[in-house]
Amino acid sequence: EGPEPVNLYEFESIAKAKLSSMAYDYYSSGACDEITLHKNQSAYREILLKYRVLVDVSNRDLSVSVLGQKISFPVMIAPTAFQQMAHPEGENATARAAYAEDTIMILSTLSNTSVEDAAKATNGNLWFQLYVYRDREVTRELIQRAEKAGCRAIVVTVDAPFLGIRERDVRNGFTLPEGLTVKNMDASLLANVSGADGQSGLTSYFASQLDPSLSWKDIEWLRSVTKLPVILKGIACKEDTMLAAQHNIDAIVISNHGGRQLDTCRATIEVLPEAVECSDGKMEILIDGGIRRGTDVLKAIALGAKAVLIGRPVLWGLAYDGENGVRKVLQILKKEFDLSMALCGCISVSNISPDLIVKK
Amino acid sequence: EGPEPVNLYEFESIAKAKLSSMAYDYYSSGACDEITLHKNQSAYREILLKYRVLVDVSNRDLSVSVLGQKISFPVMIAPTAFQQMAHPEGENATARAAYAEDTIMILSTLSNTSVEDAAKATNGNLWFQLYVYRDREVTRELIQRAEKAGCRAIVVTVDAPFLGIRERDVRNGFTLPEGLTVKNMDASLLANVSGADGQSGLTSYFASQLDPSLSWKDIEWLRSVTKLPVILKGIACKEDTMLAAQHNIDAIVISNHGGRQLDTCRATIEVLPEAVECSDGKMEILIDGGIRRGTDVLKAIALGAKAVLIGRPVLWGLAYDGENGVRKVLQILKKEFDLSMALCGCISVSNISPDLIVKK
Amino acid sequence: EGPEPVNLYEFESIAKAKLSSMAYDYYSSGACDEITLHKNQSAYREILLKYRVLVDVSNRDLSVSVLGQKISFPVMIAPTAFQQMAHPEGENATARAAYAEDTIMILSTLSNTSVEDAAKATNGNLWFQLYVYRDREVTRELIQRAEKAGCRAIVVTVDAPFLGIRERDVRNGFTLPEGLTVKNMDASLLANVSGADGQSGLTSYFASQLDPSLSWKDIEWLRSVTKLPVILKGIACKEDTMLAAQHNIDAIVISNHGGRQLDTCRATIEVLPEAVECSDGKMEILIDGGIRRGTDVLKAIALGAKAVLIGRPVLWGLAYDGENGVRKVLQILKKEFDLSMALCGCISVSNISPDLIVKK
Amino acid sequence: EGPEPVNLYEFESIAKAKLSSMAYDYYSSGACDEITLHKNQSAYREILLKYRVLVDVSNRDLSVSVLGQKISFPVMIAPTAFQQMAHPEGENATARAAYAEDTIMILSTLSNTSVEDAAKATNGNLWFQLYVYRDREVTRELIQRAEKAGCRAIVVTVDAPFLGIRERDVRNGFTLPEGLTVKNMDASLLANVSGADGQSGLTSYFASQLDPSLSWKDIEWLRSVTKLPVILKGIACKEDTMLAAQHNIDAIVISNHGGRQLDTCRATIEVLPEAVECSDGKMEILIDGGIRRGTDVLKAIALGAKAVLIGRPVLWGLAYDGENGVRKVLQILKKEFDLSMALCGCISVSNISPDLIVKK
Ligand SMILES: Cc1cc2nc3c(=O)[nH]c(=O)nc-3n(C[C@H](O)[C@H](O)[C@H](O)COP(=O)(O)O)c2cc1C
Ligand SMILES: Cc1cc2nc3c(=O)[nH]c(=O)nc-3n(C[C@H](O)[C@H](O)[C@H](O)COP(=O)(O)O)c2cc1C
Ligand SMILES: Cc1cc2nc3c(=O)[nH]c(=O)nc-3n(C[C@H](O)[C@H](O)[C@H](O)COP(=O)(O)O)c2cc1C
Ligand SMILES: Cc1cc2nc3c(=O)[nH]c(=O)nc-3n(C[C@H](O)[C@H](O)[C@H](O)COP(=O)(O)O)c2cc1C
Repeated sequence: EGPEPVNLYEFESIAKAKLSSMAYDYYSSGACDEITLHKNQSAYREILLKYRVLVDVSNRDLSVSVLGQKISFPVMIAPTAFQQMAHPEGENATARAAYAEDTIMILSTLSNTSVEDAAKATNGNLWFQLYVYRDREVTRELIQRAEKAGCRAIVVTVDAPFLGIRERDVRNGFTLPEGLTVKNMDASLLANVSGADGQSGLTSYFASQLDPSLSWKDIEWLRSVTKLPVILKGIACKEDTMLAAQHNIDAIVISNHGGRQLDTCRATIEVLPEAVECSDGKMEILIDGGIRRGTDVLKAIALGAKAVLIGRPVLWGLAYDGENGVRKVLQILKKEFDLSMALCGCISVSNISPDLIVKK
Repeated sequence: EGPEPVNLYEFESIAKAKLSSMAYDYYSSGACDEITLHKNQSAYREILLKYRVLVDVSNRDLSVSVLGQKISFPVMIAPTAFQQMAHPEGENATARAAYAEDTIMILSTLSNTSVEDAAKATNGNLWFQLYVYRDREVTRELIQRAEKAGCRAIVVTVDAPFLGIRERDVRNGFTLPEGLTVKNMDASLLANVSGADGQSGLTSYFASQLDPSLSWKDIEWLRSVTKLPVILKGIACKEDTMLAAQHNIDAIVISNHGGRQLDTCRATIEVLPEAVECSDGKMEILIDGGIRRGTDVLKAIALGAKAVLIGRPVLWGLAYDGENGVRKVLQILKKEFDLSMALCGCISVSNISPDLIVKK
Repeated sequence: EGPEPVNLYEFESIAKAKLSSMAYDYYSSGACDEITLHKNQSAYREILLKYRVLVDVSNRDLSVSVLGQKISFPVMIAPTAFQQMAHPEGENATARAAYAEDTIMILSTLSNTSVEDAAKATNGNLWFQLYVYRDREVTRELIQRAEKAGCRAIVVTVDAPFLGIRERDVRNGFTLPEGLTVKNMDASLLANVSGADGQSGLTSYFASQLDPSLSWKDIEWLRSVTKLPVILKGIACKEDTMLAAQHNIDAIVISNHGGRQLDTCRATIEVLPEAVECSDGKMEILIDGGIRRGTDVLKAIALGAKAVLIGRPVLWGLAYDGENGVRKVLQILKKEFDLSMALCGCISVSNISPDLIVKK
Repeated sequence: EGPEPVNLYEFESIAKAKLSSMAYDYYSSGACDEITLHKNQSAYREILLKYRVLVDVSNRDLSVSVLGQKISFPVMIAPTAFQQMAHPEGENATARAAYAEDTIMILSTLSNTSVEDAAKATNGNLWFQLYVYRDREVTRELIQRAEKAGCRAIVVTVDAPFLGIRERDVRNGFTLPEGLTVKNMDASLLANVSGADGQSGLTSYFASQLDPSLSWKDIEWLRSVTKLPVILKGIACKEDTMLAAQHNIDAIVISNHGGRQLDTCRATIEVLPEAVECSDGKMEILIDGGIRRGTDVLKAIALGAKAVLIGRPVLWGLAYDGENGVRKVLQILKKEFDLSMALCGCISVSNISPDLIVKK
């Protein structure tokens, strides 16, 4: 038993030691040279804070509302596939942690736990991340299952017409370990992801099952088949933000899939300001990618995000200690965020203004 | 016995070898990823000098006056807590060194030597750094003791409503070593700082005793209970500088607490120009954080500071050789500063103009 | 047998292990401090992509036409000398690979395979790179041989009036290995390249045989002795691009000879925008230097290149596995380029617009 | 016997192995953190060249005239003290090398060879570097000896009212080795430089002997006691350049003493453009500091320098192989410079225009 992790980075090194290298590689890797992967984090370190003093900060309120749902602090759980590779309880443990820490979990289409089970564990505080299948019937059924299970939003991932090249997975011939399946799929081909030498199994899965023709008219179709709010995840420029606003999308997630799709695209936090500006308050804007510190959360809020999502840190927490590990991750981040607010003279999230950021 | 240190950096490595790791970690560390800690220093290295030649520099006057008090050169001693961890004589040794080198010492509220003893050793050349306690009576008594002891100014630290996260202290469960107490407090709870596994004792001390509600109206109260000049330490932006000027503050210290409070805030030297500009000569502006070279002092003066404070180098000098070590630190810095002035064609501190700095 | 290379960089390390150090050094090295060599690559990594989503990218057309010749994707093979040092089949293997992957090969004057053989192997999809000899008769004969062999363009290299200093070759006293000759020269002195201690053989060859007086009037002479399109390779600034356009040149290759001539000149991709702007669509603009990733190709196209050339990666592929190795290199780059297009929302090369590049 | 050095950097590593560490440290070190020392070199690497092609460069003329004296290429030898520490023949060997390679040597006041001997060896191609002594008689005698010996200019060093802090010399207690003396001084105290533990002997020498009151009126006095052209060495900003022009100085050397005086001042090549601009062609402008490559020379010329000086490389050449070593250094630099000119399309030094430099 080593010492307790004191920050989010330390969860990763502990998790690395516990996980199989195939799992660790799959979780940690980014596309190609992993330039965007690293930029997502380093871009936050380059944003400097201009803090304020002599404000009474004895009481602080960290809560925010996202699409009308109140959460305890502006950090949510990003959808990540195959969480049973990290811990036998997988998405179930994550869901219970989200519930306990009073935030929203987004469940991946490619989860090892069914949407019904996850919804129960979160007590309904669940959103469903949707990959659109070539087979529209399969897609429609997924949405209906999510609705029925009580999910409160559909998060359509739009940055993955094909899977990005993650070279470590290619080298490992990434395969879902024996016994794990995609639980939102009935015992069909759709439930299995298996690779071969020199090929990632997920790449083939994407190429064969998911739909690279997805376009704005499909988004309209999606909206026609569900009453739930529709969120687009994977928008990374002004132009697509404007199109989303024109299509009356409820919210978008500025995301580059954690640097796993197109390498050398911008860090998400560099995209945020232009997206906020052109959305003109019509949609809620969320962001993910590289958030590891309370000050990162504060910076994203200051630049206009409603809330942020974290992906890998949750997986490291899960590997570290299941539900308890995920809670620790959320608690540490919350404590850091709380202290950042206090040291910046903010007593509620709405106090976090762009003035706190040093102009370049 | 190794070789004598020839610059301020070398005092640190020698001190590191002598100190317990708990003490070294407490002294050296900064908040979170220590980005601001390092920036404080590196920002000076990026400021380039535009020196002048063919000026008669055979005689140079290094002295300046700060709030009317003349010191031998524009370097003062920043308040740092718990100096007996560095040397049995602690703040007493520092005080004697300050006196011998003819400069001002600022004594921390959290000193292991009483303000009365330190005042005696400096022959009155002492300022008192005040942490404002939740209990205003305690606070008022502290101020009165300082006045009575002969301190010439009250330096209120405003950047620490809560203690920053210094992860090494958290890992060490930082505790004041057996036998050491906060000497400005009578044998009360207030005199003890002890931590536990996975928690810094100072963090709990701050959270329980010091007042996170401190605001401008409390500063007015402070001014009403003392005749001494009031200085605010920990201002780090234009907006708060302007507020200080409006509140008729006598002087401010541009400081980010040596990078120990809010990580990823700016280097202090990057803040200085805007603070100088907006203060419009109404207050004296001091600065601390990362000053290690004579040229750093010269740059701060050139950009408008009246004088600078040094924190950690004093602790390293103390650990190296008590009073004598602190004197060495001050002497080396003075010699370097003197030479910088000569090589820049300056014969008095008032010659050090912004023109010496290369515009970006 | 190690694992298969998954990207172009990995071909280099495998090739390095297989090649003599004289050959590896000759292939890999750049001029002097190799600053431009590295800049050619790093400049691509600093260009950030602004990708688009929700475009139907299920079908993509990667082909382009260069000087009227259609190729399967916008990557061609740059002329590199002495390919038999990499593999016994040398330029022949490269030629067959170019043919198989449906792209154009540019054969170096200094090839170990004759232009006739290479032309046969590419089925005519060959361009001839010309070094202009002091002896104009030799030069004219070379052109005529190339024409007769069926080459479709003459690529005159203009950035090498003398050979750049490649220090590793100087140290090695670079010599063409026993048995290898310049096959486009009859068994004459012109066919031999041999060095001595402290001298690269190629430097002497250039100094004695090639013409440092080459100027625009010689280009006119060249155009008068051939009907083939004339392309200038080695242009690296706006001014010379404009001169090329004024001389009615058909196409230019923005190139700094892979960083092998003048060290500390710009990365080619930094030159491209100004060249494109001032050529005003009159000439086709190609580019080489440092292209290693599908996103590099996409960036060059987005900034106005018609197609790109790759030099060293082909040599590494050749060393790795002859024709098959070169094909693998081309296939991997094609696959990466294809995926980049898809992830950027492009279905044909003409969709790749400057808007995909983040402005600085 | 290792391999022959192929570039100027390699002379340093060979010299380092041959020299005592006291000598190597003295030669190589810079002031304090050696930031300016490194910047002098790195600044050249950041200047990018915009080369031109298709110019007839078969014949090139590298010569220039400096203050009316023609030299074979625009590189001269900077004054450096105590050359017998590098080689028993010291300045004599350097002088013969300068003569053989047809350039000007500047002899330091602090040479181990007398100005008469050096003048003979250079056949009069010698300039004399003057340190102004507190004792003006000593100073006047030095000038007269130099004149009589046939020196063609007096180079007054103006950036050293005191010696900069070179910490390695302080640690070594730098002392001139037994048997070496300052040969331009008769057997007096002025001829000896000896240090002690924790102190550089040269620092004391400067403090006691040289005149820190040197100012513009002394320059006028100097001009009144000599008919030789007076050159100021150590100017590093626009303002002092303008003063020099107003004082009708014949030439200046933009220099920061090889980074040995005031640390964190600018690289000299960064100063050059503003000095050139404000001197308005009235004075010749030379430059030294960090020049190691032919392209560095070309860049300095392009930015307006008449010629450059090299300091340390000469010392490394001397240590490597006496006269022959210094010649090798000059020959390599000449060859590199010649090739740079050719690859930039220049056939005479006057062709080297600012247009060759990429604007930032
Ligand atoms: C292992 C892993 C699996 C992921 N799976 C999905 C997924 O199934 N669906 C999806 O939309 N995003 C997926 N993502 C992207 C995340 O939702 C999120 O955008 C990203 O992880 C945020 O960056 P961070 O990990 O730096 O916090 C995955 C990311 C990782 C690291
Ligand atoms: C070990 C340590 C203890 C400190 N204690 C105090 C303190 O009690 N009160 C305070 O106002 N500042 C305190 N500071 C901050 C210093 O006054 C000062 O702002 C900082 O050390 C300056 O940066 P430098 O160490 O880089 O010179 C402390 C700093 C250190 C390093
Ligand atoms: C080993 C080697 C040999 C080369 N030989 C030639 C040549 O004979 N003629 C020529 O025009 N360019 C030659 N080049 C330059 C290439 O055509 C091309 O400009 C360069 O390699 C592109 O950069 P890259 O290697 O980074 O792709 C050579 C380059 C290398 C690396
Ligand atoms: C070992 C050494 C001794 C020097 N001695 C003198 C000197 O006696 N007088 C002087 O004007 N400059 C002196 N200089 C400075 C040089 O003239 C010159 O400005 C500097 O070396 C140029 O930089 P470089 O060494 O990078 O070429 C000395 C420099 C070195 C390295």
